[in-house]
Amino acid sequence: MKILLIHGPNLNLLGKREPGIYGSKDLEEINAQVRLLAEENEAELKIVQSNSEGALVDAIQDAARWADGILINPGAYSHYSYAIRDALSAVGLPAVEVHLSNIFAREEFRHLSVISPVVEGTVAGLGWRSYTCAMEGLIGILRERGK
Amino acid sequence: MKILLIHGPNLNLLGKREPGIYGSKDLEEINAQVRLLAEENEAELKIVQSNSEGALVDAIQDAARWADGILINPGAYSHYSYAIRDALSAVGLPAVEVHLSNIFAREEFRHLSVISPVVEGTVAGLGWRSYTCAMEGLIGILRERGK
Amino acid sequence: MKILLIHGPNLNLLGKREPGIYGSKDLEEINAQVRLLAEENEAELKIVQSNSEGALVDAIQDAARWADGILINPGAYSHYSYAIRDALSAVGLPAVEVHLSNIFAREEFRHLSVISPVVEGTVAGLGWRSYTCAMEGLIGILRERGK
Amino acid sequence: MKILLIHGPNLNLLGKREPGIYGSKDLEEINAQVRLLAEENEAELKIVQSNSEGALVDAIQDAARWADGILINPGAYSHYSYAIRDALSAVGLPAVEVHLSNIFAREEFRHLSVISPVVEGTVAGLGWRSYTCAMEGLIGILRERGK
Amino acid sequence: MKILLIHGPNLNLLGKREPGIYGSKDLEEINAQVRLLAEENEAELKIVQSNSEGALVDAIQDAARWADGILINPGAYSHYSYAIRDALSAVGLPAVEVHLSNIFAREEFRHLSVISPVVEGTVAGLGWRSYTCAMEGLIGILRERGK
Amino acid sequence: MKILLIHGPNLNLLGKREPGIYGSKDLEEINAQVRLLAEENEAELKIVQSNSEGALVDAIQDAARWADGILINPGAYSHYSYAIRDALSAVGLPAVEVHLSNIFAREEFRHLSVISPVVEGTVAGLGWRSYTCAMEGLIGILRERGK
Amino acid sequence: MKILLIHGPNLNLLGKREPGIYGSKDLEEINAQVRLLAEENEAELKIVQSNSEGALVDAIQDAARWADGILINPGAYSHYSYAIRDALSAVGLPAVEVHLSNIFAREEFRHLSVISPVVEGTVAGLGWRSYTCAMEGLIGILRERGK
Amino acid sequence: MKILLIHGPNLNLLGKREPGIYGSKDLEEINAQVRLLAEENEAELKIVQSNSEGALVDAIQDAARWADGILINPGAYSHYSYAIRDALSAVGLPAVEVHLSNIFAREEFRHLSVISPVVEGTVAGLGWRSYTCAMEGLIGILRERGK
Amino acid sequence: MKILLIHGPNLNLLGKREPGIYGSKDLEEINAQVRLLAEENEAELKIVQSNSEGALVDAIQDAARWADGILINPGAYSHYSYAIRDALSAVGLPAVEVHLSNIFAREEFRHLSVISPVVEGTVAGLGWRSYTCAMEGLIGILRERGK
Amino acid sequence: MKILLIHGPNLNLLGKREPGIYGSKDLEEINAQVRLLAEENEAELKIVQSNSEGALVDAIQDAARWADGILINPGAYSHYSYAIRDALSAVGLPAVEVHLSNIFAREEFRHLSVISPVVEGTVAGLGWRSYTCAMEGLIGILRERGK
Amino acid sequence: MKILLIHGPNLNLLGKREPGIYGSKDLEEINAQVRLLAEENEAELKIVQSNSEGALVDAIQDAARWADGILINPGAYSHYSYAIRDALSAVGLPAVEVHLSNIFAREEFRHLSVISPVVEGTVAGLGWRSYTCAMEGLIGILRERGK
Amino acid sequence: MKILLIHGPNLNLLGKREPGIYGSKDLEEINAQVRLLAEENEAELKIVQSNSEGALVDAIQDAARWADGILINPGAYSHYSYAIRDALSAVGLPAVEVHLSNIFAREEFRHLSVISPVVEGTVAGLGWRSYTCAMEGLIGILRERGK
Repeated sequence: MKILLIHGPNLNLLGKREPGIYGSKDLEEINAQVRLLAEENEAELKIVQSNSEGALVDAIQDAARWADGILINPGAYSHYSYAIRDALSAVGLPAVEVHLSNIFAREEFRHLSVISPVVEGTVAGLGWRSYTCAMEGLIGILRERGK
Repeated sequence: MKILLIHGPNLNLLGKREPGIYGSKDLEEINAQVRLLAEENEAELKIVQSNSEGALVDAIQDAARWADGILINPGAYSHYSYAIRDALSAVGLPAVEVHLSNIFAREEFRHLSVISPVVEGTVAGLGWRSYTCAMEGLIGILRERGK
Repeated sequence: MKILLIHGPNLNLLGKREPGIYGSKDLEEINAQVRLLAEENEAELKIVQSNSEGALVDAIQDAARWADGILINPGAYSHYSYAIRDALSAVGLPAVEVHLSNIFAREEFRHLSVISPVVEGTVAGLGWRSYTCAMEGLIGILRERGK
Repeated sequence: MKILLIHGPNLNLLGKREPGIYGSKDLEEINAQVRLLAEENEAELKIVQSNSEGALVDAIQDAARWADGILINPGAYSHYSYAIRDALSAVGLPAVEVHLSNIFAREEFRHLSVISPVVEGTVAGLGWRSYTCAMEGLIGILRERGK
Repeated sequence: MKILLIHGPNLNLLGKREPGIYGSKDLEEINAQVRLLAEENEAELKIVQSNSEGALVDAIQDAARWADGILINPGAYSHYSYAIRDALSAVGLPAVEVHLSNIFAREEFRHLSVISPVVEGTVAGLGWRSYTCAMEGLIGILRERGK
Repeated sequence: MKILLIHGPNLNLLGKREPGIYGSKDLEEINAQVRLLAEENEAELKIVQSNSEGALVDAIQDAARWADGILINPGAYSHYSYAIRDALSAVGLPAVEVHLSNIFAREEFRHLSVISPVVEGTVAGLGWRSYTCAMEGLIGILRERGK
Repeated sequence: MKILLIHGPNLNLLGKREPGIYGSKDLEEINAQVRLLAEENEAELKIVQSNSEGALVDAIQDAARWADGILINPGAYSHYSYAIRDALSAVGLPAVEVHLSNIFAREEFRHLSVISPVVEGTVAGLGWRSYTCAMEGLIGILRERGK
Repeated sequence: MKILLIHGPNLNLLGKREPGIYGSKDLEEINAQVRLLAEENEAELKIVQSNSEGALVDAIQDAARWADGILINPGAYSHYSYAIRDALSAVGLPAVEVHLSNIFAREEFRHLSVISPVVEGTVAGLGWRSYTCAMEGLIGILRERGK
Repeated sequence: MKILLIHGPNLNLLGKREPGIYGSKDLEEINAQVRLLAEENEAELKIVQSNSEGALVDAIQDAARWADGILINPGAYSHYSYAIRDALSAVGLPAVEVHLSNIFAREEFRHLSVISPVVEGTVAGLGWRSYTCAMEGLIGILRERGK
Repeated sequence: MKILLIHGPNLNLLGKREPGIYGSKDLEEINAQVRLLAEENEAELKIVQSNSEGALVDAIQDAARWADGILINPGAYSHYSYAIRDALSAVGLPAVEVHLSNIFAREEFRHLSVISPVVEGTVAGLGWRSYTCAMEGLIGILRERGK
Repeated sequence: MKILLIHGPNLNLLGKREPGIYGSKDLEEINAQVRLLAEENEAELKIVQSNSEGALVDAIQDAARWADGILINPGAYSHYSYAIRDALSAVGLPAVEVHLSNIFAREEFRHLSVISPVVEGTVAGLGWRSYTCAMEGLIGILRERGK
Repeated sequence: MKILLIHGPNLNLLGKREPGIYGSKDLEEINAQVRLLAEENEAELKIVQSNSEGALVDAIQDAARWADGILINPGAYSHYSYAIRDALSAVGLPAVEVHLSNIFAREEFRHLSVISPVVEGTVAGLGWRSYTCAMEGLIGILRERGK
């Protein structure tokens, strides 16, 4: 089982960036948690972080050649990047969307994600656990589909 | 650790009701999955299902006397029950919202939940796994807060 | 042929309640008219009235076990009860929506019914005749489908 | 008792036009059903079909000289013809609006009819039975008013 | 000086149609008033009434060949006929829009006229005087421009 | 003089529930204040609290048989319960709406009450005094009308 | 017959202010035109111009003591002064609203006047002739009502 | 205890102005009722009425130097005067908003008050009793805060 | 291969009508260009122009009997004629929509065409070339489908 | 070079009024800063503050007779005073709009200024420096235009 | 004649990506078709594809130095990239927008393109023929302008 | 004192790009003006221009390591780049937003900047002086905060 984990813009600042909203773990610590889960499930994990919408589209397209599923925190692009949405639709891999904070309890522009309609599901607001819960969900779905 | 699991209206029909949308497991099978997780984590679990908004408010209020956290799938009430929202705010317990289907990929009225702004987080679209992922997230949060 | 007739909130006040809008027949008189039609068509008729959204959902769910079709005047719940809508979708029985008054000629909030998209059709504005016209329509549809 | 039955644009194509939406009966078959009802009730029936908004307004105006009531399926004009609405208001005859399909379950622009606020009532979604149910309703109303 | 006076749909019913809104003069009486003004000002007047949008467009196009100005009461077409609007723009003659009733004090859909942005000005709510006031305004404007 | 005092959902939690918003008096203390006023004015007072919309509708309908006026804090139902609104319209008793907090200074969904258009008036934001001010207003209105 | 002519804010700059929009006549020249009409009709005319909303309300209120009708160009206040609207409603005198420019062909905020629903009618876009046309209309209406 | 009572535009016409909406008491009678309450509570009362937004802002600013609380009926300014709102915020005195009529049952523009979010609370729809109820509420609040 | 070319309202004025927007070729010159293309492709071409919505619906319905495809410039009807839209859906022939001007760069009401969702595609803004490009596209599509 | 500095409603309370939002300098201190800049640039400065919309319009109109440019903080009137906007358009002097606070980070109604479209530019959110930055900008613009 | 052909995000996946929507030709095949047309018209063609908004802006800017016209399929960026829109405005070259699918028949967010208002015209929904039709249109326009 | 000056997309075309809107100075000339101010204030200045959203996010993130404040003209990204907004929030440095043109007087989509709520303030419409005014404001703010 091969999974691509994508972190969108500004997530490289985790730990330093507004910890009251995003928690105090930095990106490396979160990645470590997800890697642990991957290893326990004998899944291969590749991790990409970029602030560039185009690079995120490239990474999703590239996944079509090797991955079985995608875990993606699109960051601020969640709310307007139809390019990322189209990339996810185009590659057609099962994907789960992740948000550290409860986007529904914040500014109005964060209440809707244009990515959500094309993924399997969404996990939001559980802090770093959003990643691990979503990872478990994705692994379960992939297993069920025989990967 | 004591947790209340609440199922809203029409979830008693699971398995029979539009399985293409909600999956083929019935409510008992999902409850069994969540109970298993509760036992593994030595948590006490109480389960309530009702089609009545008032009864759901009563159950949430009652939880204030004994529970440490709430797992809730408000069903259709997600989209208009400010009474349930106020009950959750009033009792102030950590809560996680669950949806079997990807509500963001369905009719427009399902895209926003009036419950979401007052819970810790939301898990949607992962089928019955939405419950187990959310349960793991809630248990983690409660442990971190010393329950 | 077995039909469930559901009257939503405040319809128990018919005859007394704003007769200029809802007509001067009381609920019993309307029920009698519908019963007559049922008898003429050798259909079994069960009638439920409740002011409680949850009780209406229960009644609809219960119909899945015995009824062939549903005649429903959801009253004020027409305009916001996604729980009743979901119940109707879930049981999947042919249903016809009824309104005594011309809801399109009244306050703006009454112009749209969230129930309408999941029923076969709607009859509105013909006073107590809305019920009998809808009953005839429903019986015709059920016959055509071999009930 | 004298009744004008008006069919709006594209209804002359019935039977051939998208039968999944509009049913397989053609306009003549529907007219025959309504004529039967008229005869049973000793009502005189005149039938007009036109694709032209102006011709429909003319027909409604003309009815003021001879008819007691109007049965109208305004077709697509339902959603924007304030000219037809004004004609119905101007002649002041009791009218019932008819739709073959469940307009509330289709594209959003079909959810509101600008005609509805000026008619007695609306029957929609019952297929060709929408016409006969509406005809029965209209005859009942006219009788009650002593026609 | 040559002027075309256009009456839109349902204005042929004036006097009979809802006199509380539109006044008790019929169309002939109003035309007589406008004709009087035309004669006093040695203007030639041609009058057209039609319920058909296409015929109104034809009449406006035809005016390009002979008229110096247009007086138009577009009736219900005021609120949606971009075809009439485009015809007025295309012929480029000075035009004044007339309404018998105060459209701003009636249903919301009557508050905006899509015709208004392409005419010189609008006179509304003064009953039959709307026509004579508008006629005087139009004659004044045409004189000023040397017609 | 006979008055029904209705408390909607979650008001049974007063004192414990978010005292910064709703004040520190519990429901019993507020009821005692209103009872005092009732006694001073020789009015009979019946008090109902329920979290269930249907039960609130039942209570309002029941008041038609005995009460002269209604004091109602619809809680969260203020913002969507057209069933409660219809019940108040149907019984036709003078009613005054009460809110402890200043609903106009809180979340946007609380700014409009669907109940307000059918009551005599509204008192909001004065804490427990909202109840006593509203009670005095209601008593004055009832006296003026000869109760 | 006694008439109050009210000019709202910035109309004292006429002639100097954006003549392409408002014409080249200054306020005195327009007043002279209206005075001429008043004299021809043996009407008494009082003219007020103010940039202050309060002063305009005062002038309207004052008219209740002596005037038979009001001619008002509310200028920019047309689009938001509910205080002027309420003053016109309160005094209940027949009033006609005037605009020099075609407000429907300019910025969107000018398309709706909050004053229009409470006056008899509106004349807009005819330049200084808007005043004389409106004056003739008002005089006609007052005569008809026996002033 | 010192209180400023402010009446906004057109309230000087009370009694004469649309008594069906605003009641038959004139401003002096209402002021007398409030003065009585002030005397009973040994409060000093100053009363201001103005049709001018600026004068109302001045009066509120002036209150900062001597008053303990403000009772304000902003009239039509309720719906757009952010200047009055800012004045109330700036002086920071406890204030209660008053409306004679039930603004929520009238035209849509009256449903929202831009003043409401910065006052303690609102009393609306109780006729002249709105003033006395609000006055009692304000006195209670001021006493509680030790004035 | 047989093609119907439809020109909507006001297109008969081409060349004379606002050439800055619509170009200087008249309708005959454009028709000649399209005819040339038809001949080069051995396609039969029938051309209809009408200002009447009903006549355009008639022409589309008639095409069902003989044509393989439709080229249509609905003119102003593009923005509101659901009757034309329904006619195109009903006949089910491949159709291409044409606009001379760039409708997306003009008034807001021109940005959306209610016709577009039921045609194969749209060509806009290329002046008379919109017709020839659309014709080539339509011929290509028809050939591909074996006409 | 002659400049008019206008302060709108409630700005006379600066220093005392909500210093967390508007800063701790009072109006005199801010005026002193601007005066200093004026002197350094040999510009004549006149300063006006008023809470009255009409008085602000008067001041702007008056500037047409003597000033070369205008610096204006319209306060709350920014969000609805089309009268002030029209005055600025009418006099046609270069003007710069000033706001102490970051209006884009506050309540939604403050996000748009109806004044902004008719001034040269806007400076907001820099506290008292908004005035000095805007003054420098205005002086630069006036110099460039040869004043 | 020199033309830049720009393909936006995800168009490199053509042929593989949702062929039901985008057709079965891959990008190379489409490019070959356009190249053929370029050669036939002795036009020089440069082709760019990128998933990155910034790279697309760079390419457009670069075209200002060498190209005569631009053919652009902005993909998902059509619906929000004001940066690409500004780039096209800034370089001022004639451009034609291309879409493979009928964007007006898909999700609502695809109905409006923010690019459309700054190009010459748009061709959409004709599959790969959208490119060739648009290319012919662009070549025609460039020739007419003497390139 | 160390300041980062960021220019967003298409600003590298200044001078050449639509000088009527953006002025005739090119980017180098504007940078020279800002550099001069920096030197006068002994501030270190780093300047970045990019058409890529991701590169702008990178530059802002990088500033967290060395800069005291940010001057940013986000260009078209102002209106939709929540990624840039989040970057500015994350680094938490004082920032001032700059626009050459008066964005409030242009197309509606330019009226709101999603960046504005997270910066100190905004300077718009003063041409190249927007930069120098904003730079002076930023330097003042940084000094006040002890940089």
